[in-house]
Amino acid sequence: MKWSDIGGEECSMARALSVIGDRWTLLVLREAFLRTRRFDDFHERIGCTRHILADRLKALVDHGVLEKRLYQEKPARHEYRLTRMGRDLYPVILSIVHWGDTYMAGPGGPPLKHRHRTCGKLTKPVLTCSACGDALNPRDVTPEGRFLEERGLEFAAKRE
Amino acid sequence: MKWSDIGGEECSMARALSVIGDRWTLLVLREAFLRTRRFDDFHERIGCTRHILADRLKALVDHGVLEKRLYQEKPARHEYRLTRMGRDLYPVILSIVHWGDTYMAGPGGPPLKHRHRTCGKLTKPVLTCSACGDALNPRDVTPEGRFLEERGLEFAAKRE
Repeated sequence: MKWSDIGGEECSMARALSVIGDRWTLLVLREAFLRTRRFDDFHERIGCTRHILADRLKALVDHGVLEKRLYQEKPARHEYRLTRMGRDLYPVILSIVHWGDTYMAGPGGPPLKHRHRTCGKLTKPVLTCSACGDALNPRDVTPEGRFLEERGLEFAAKRE
Repeated sequence: MKWSDIGGEECSMARALSVIGDRWTLLVLREAFLRTRRFDDFHERIGCTRHILADRLKALVDHGVLEKRLYQEKPARHEYRLTRMGRDLYPVILSIVHWGDTYMAGPGGPPLKHRHRTCGKLTKPVLTCSACGDALNPRDVTPEGRFLEERGLEFAAKRE
């Protein structure tokens, strides 16, 4: 299977990765959550070529993750803002950052901290269950559904 | 900047992506969380070439995300298990899957559901604050620290 076929696979992760599974794209999203909006700012802060950046921004707009808004008419200038679909990637981005902070920070510690303005404290993200509110540990979560059944996977067998 | 330089950047996200920011790697991790452990099973379930798979598994072992264990001596056969560092990627994987479920599921709905055995209910992941337990909304979180200050970013200015 070629990577270009992945978006058609019956797997939410594969489909999601067909949109966000590119490393430059994820850095563009990191910047967008840091409120970077303009092409030249993205370019300066990410350090990729203008060609790669233009390509990734266009793909994110085409997929509905960013929207392009005119902020100046003469000459026409656009900025890129996260849509609802884009803002819903926050758990993905913050989880990656948190994992990097935990395992890959240098001797100076994490270069970025996050303050939760609602409570005023420095925060780390905790993934919790929508039903009971407890932290989600992979050992306590059982996947189920046709994705497993169609592939005869171990988890499906274990439940019988 | 070339992609190969990214792992050296002072950014937890860029560093994390130097390990997990490859799409095949993320599919390998998806399988590992579905308890796939053996090379041939990864190969069958992911559908990439054996060469790509061997390369991605080796990199994950080298980075400490997977460990290789002998499960049969003659002939020698190994399986790949998530380490603690690997299991800590669960929020990343589950957040990507959830976003894909929300925005990219086909007419049949998400192909995989997740049951939280602790409470018995079907669950969706909710990213919450380690300090107060409320859901983390990007609009309520302010990044701070040298990563912003060194780059003179907007967030830093706004706080003054």
